[in-house]
Amino acid sequence: MEERGEISFRPIGTVRNRFTRPVEGELIRQELSELKVFPEYRRGLTGAAPGQKILVVFHFHRAEDQPPLVQHPRGDRTRSPRGVFTLRSPDRPNGIGVTEVSIEAVTGEGLVVRGLDALDGSPLLDLKIVSMTGSETGAEA
Amino acid sequence: MEERGEISFRPIGTVRNRFTRPVEGELIRQELSELKVFPEYRRGLTGAAPGQKILVVFHFHRAEDQPPLVQHPRGDRTRSPRGVFTLRSPDRPNGIGVTEVSIEAVTGEGLVVRGLDALDGSPLLDLKIVSMTGSETGAEA
Repeated sequence: MEERGEISFRPIGTVRNRFTRPVEGELIRQELSELKVFPEYRRGLTGAAPGQKILVVFHFHRAEDQPPLVQHPRGDRTRSPRGVFTLRSPDRPNGIGVTEVSIEAVTGEGLVVRGLDALDGSPLLDLKIVSMTGSETGAEA
Repeated sequence: MEERGEISFRPIGTVRNRFTRPVEGELIRQELSELKVFPEYRRGLTGAAPGQKILVVFHFHRAEDQPPLVQHPRGDRTRSPRGVFTLRSPDRPNGIGVTEVSIEAVTGEGLVVRGLDALDGSPLLDLKIVSMTGSETGAEA
């Protein structure tokens, strides 16, 4: 059986940073971003702490609607075109971004992280632990 | 502005393996899985090759609908409960799985991969390169 029906998700929060327009992801990664988690989901952060690595799953809300399946890497026409599933382009059939970041701080509204490449206003879909620190190192969650 | 509207995605394919019922992810990871990509998305695999590492983004289609935000890791009640965003549990507000796998083969219908922990029938949402091999090593996509 093939499951082809649409799958819907509800954002759990929003990305906040100073990048309101599309720029190279590398520029965004160098600065801090806030992950503002909606109040009804904040208990899901229990145990989050500075130093942990997490995966941030977000929606590329500013990306193209009908992107080509074959693209030049980073839009560089001197490079051979490749299938979008072998690239990290934001313009993809399902605009889902996945980036590993480090937690810099835990606030009353969510997290401050370093290493994210999402634009301001990007809807957050999920957060997942990658690795703990200190006494919990090695405790596979 | 907070974006709270639902976000919908269309599966790009389906996971096929022998695990039709929930089991520990570790058991599934040890075996091969097929990623059957729907025909209209197959051009997106152009450039995929054995040895590459990719992220597989899929839907935990068999997970709980209204999972608790705080859970015992791996359901083990001897371990302290933690927020779901600091766990990898399939039972989460948005049932999105993200797993790094290695490509073992490229077939006419998609990919054969090692390391996936998705059940048979899981809808595929996205594939993203992690690293290339051979002459392309270091070419950040």
